[in-house]
Amino acid sequence: MSIERGVAEALDRADGLARFRTEFVIDDDGPIYLDGNSLGPLPGAVPAIVERVVREQWGGGLVESWEHWIDLPARVGAIVAGLIGADPSAVTMSDSTSVNLYKLAAAALGARPGRTAIVMVDGEFPTDRYLMGSLAASHGGEVRTASIGSAESPTPDHLESVLGQDTALVVLSAVSYRSAAIADMAGITAAAHDVGAMVLWDLSHAVGSVPVDLASTGADLAVGCTYKYLCGGPGAPAFLYVRPDLHPTLDHPIHGWFGHARQFAFEEGYEPSSGIGRFAVGTPPILSLAAAEPGIALVAAAGIEAIRAKNIAATTLLIDLWEERLAPFGFGLASPRDPARRGSHVALTHPDGLAVSRVLRSERRVITDFRAPDSIRLAVSPLVTRFTEVWDAVEQIREVARGGYGPPADLRVT
Amino acid sequence: MSIERGVAEALDRADGLARFRTEFVIDDDGPIYLDGNSLGPLPGAVPAIVERVVREQWGGGLVESWEHWIDLPARVGAIVAGLIGADPSAVTMSDSTSVNLYKLAAAALGARPGRTAIVMVDGEFPTDRYLMGSLAASHGGEVRTASIGSAESPTPDHLESVLGQDTALVVLSAVSYRSAAIADMAGITAAAHDVGAMVLWDLSHAVGSVPVDLASTGADLAVGCTYKYLCGGPGAPAFLYVRPDLHPTLDHPIHGWFGHARQFAFEEGYEPSSGIGRFAVGTPPILSLAAAEPGIALVAAAGIEAIRAKNIAATTLLIDLWEERLAPFGFGLASPRDPARRGSHVALTHPDGLAVSRVLRSERRVITDFRAPDSIRLAVSPLVTRFTEVWDAVEQIREVARGGYGPPADLRVT
Repeated sequence: MSIERGVAEALDRADGLARFRTEFVIDDDGPIYLDGNSLGPLPGAVPAIVERVVREQWGGGLVESWEHWIDLPARVGAIVAGLIGADPSAVTMSDSTSVNLYKLAAAALGARPGRTAIVMVDGEFPTDRYLMGSLAASHGGEVRTASIGSAESPTPDHLESVLGQDTALVVLSAVSYRSAAIADMAGITAAAHDVGAMVLWDLSHAVGSVPVDLASTGADLAVGCTYKYLCGGPGAPAFLYVRPDLHPTLDHPIHGWFGHARQFAFEEGYEPSSGIGRFAVGTPPILSLAAAEPGIALVAAAGIEAIRAKNIAATTLLIDLWEERLAPFGFGLASPRDPARRGSHVALTHPDGLAVSRVLRSERRVITDFRAPDSIRLAVSPLVTRFTEVWDAVEQIREVARGGYGPPADLRVT
Repeated sequence: MSIERGVAEALDRADGLARFRTEFVIDDDGPIYLDGNSLGPLPGAVPAIVERVVREQWGGGLVESWEHWIDLPARVGAIVAGLIGADPSAVTMSDSTSVNLYKLAAAALGARPGRTAIVMVDGEFPTDRYLMGSLAASHGGEVRTASIGSAESPTPDHLESVLGQDTALVVLSAVSYRSAAIADMAGITAAAHDVGAMVLWDLSHAVGSVPVDLASTGADLAVGCTYKYLCGGPGAPAFLYVRPDLHPTLDHPIHGWFGHARQFAFEEGYEPSSGIGRFAVGTPPILSLAAAEPGIALVAAAGIEAIRAKNIAATTLLIDLWEERLAPFGFGLASPRDPARRGSHVALTHPDGLAVSRVLRSERRVITDFRAPDSIRLAVSPLVTRFTEVWDAVEQIREVARGGYGPPADLRVT
């Protein structure tokens, strides 16, 4: 064994982001948490903020507290904008990622009359596939799925055979939920535009983990979730981005009162807001939205370049350790080896991955997650994860692999 | 003056719901709050529940806390079901009222191929009108709006001239947001069914204020908000109801992973859940949803019959006081005089209603709300409002009317 624990200890000592760990509620005697790409940890500022929103604003101010709340989606959205290379006025918080995918994809289909195909790649996140499948069908079209290896990064070459003059929209994850492979956002956006299609990026696994530059790549649309690397809390409201020049004309199908140009005038007809607010629909869940702000602000304060440098270092350590200690026990690597093409988690495969994942959780105090049929995902949350936690987690996996891990359990993994 | 304050004091002494006031965070020296139909007051149990969800479940349990959260929409929905005469399995919490209106109305249009008209009545809540307008147009149809007086209760007679064989759906508020007029739910449902149309009820101002019996009236669909009489908190998730026999076949257009029959199997194709869960879409906002449960449970504990008896008594007192003390100053009544046709608020009109409403709030410590062009809404929240508060509020309005109230201000009312 050549990569001793001292290597990880040295990396921790040199970690410029180490001080951010104290901004979160982390039990240093608790489990090793490598599932921040499912649910990010709790920022320490959240309990007091939620208490204030509940007691002072809801309890004390009652309906008059809407003066604090009405601009909250735009204010939080503006912080997210800074993490994805967007103008602050081009992002707002609204609904769930799934509902936002629907709104923006439907808007794109409406903006490309006569085109009915939606282009995706193999292995996309289920909700993206389900939504695009039914949307395309309702427009008399279909989803065209490009073949791509399970740990490959999507490039224009992958899409060439499915992109065409009938393509209305390309929908892709910027970072794969499964492999963490990073898509060539600039190249794919250009290729889509070359055939007259729009692009809708799902940034759920990208925001807060890798640099994203929506404005410079010319991307049309994007959505993303805030409860993973942004540490916004369970089911925190999602964000959406629309390129500013599209605001005046792009229409989505869910015309609610929060999207109206003059919401409180209670006018007879619908006139959409002239800005990003037109993509809002109903009353946002204020407690969940207020609780999402501290995590997003912490990611912004740390800076995406520092975050990216750390997750490259930590996932590289993890892969080096895998090669040395886990590959001999039948674990495969299902994430890109090239750090430039890899986001903030590493997927390892094993024929008994579910059982391994379960035993790690129940007996080894290592929290990972499992994605059928055989992937264990190990995520680095750059503001809290220590290099020594990565080292210790690999050691626990190795011990499980050496000692057996019981029979496979059922499929439901939450 | 014949209705002295002693009348209200006697009603307070006899109020069987008075003990519920202590279950809420109410400052007895604070303003008189008659805007619970915009945002209900804070139940005292909420801060501790939210603290536990934030600290213990999110902070402590992290992703494993989904074992507490995954069934929360169904569990809270089952409590709501008891308030609206629905089977517990026929209601779930999901999205905003607006998004739910869209999903269920789109589902109804899909279930009535060849029919493209949506029937409504004059004066519906803006988001309902906007959503139905664009949905009908996208199906090549239109909204047919029946004429109805501003304080009239919708009946089958009102709809007769607009209902027909091309009607896919009737969308109506069970209680008008403006006048509090109660629709004839059983009669309208029967009339819609007679022509083969479905009915979608917006219960936002009805749930927790008047008895609703969806099952016995045979209603097809319903939605409603939880932040008014249910005291669920700002932007709390909405609920939706679908009649159980429609579950196996009714399809809505937003196919997200939370609606899948086997969500965590990450299957390639979309197969909707067999129950009400198929109308869910994305990850629900857990903090806002958990905070909504105590208020809903308090309404259920108080019982809708007792709540109804109290709001009839309190709004009747209010109308009697209006007639005696406010009508001479030019205030009109824009709610039904018949208590059986009136929900839990009373709308008074005045040419300078906005200015009156503003002065009440800023100088008289009476919180009401204003709806353009001339309505002041005064809502009774049966679990907290005292009869003496109603009496005192009318007295404040009378003093404002006697003393003048400055120039009209701008239109934005939150």
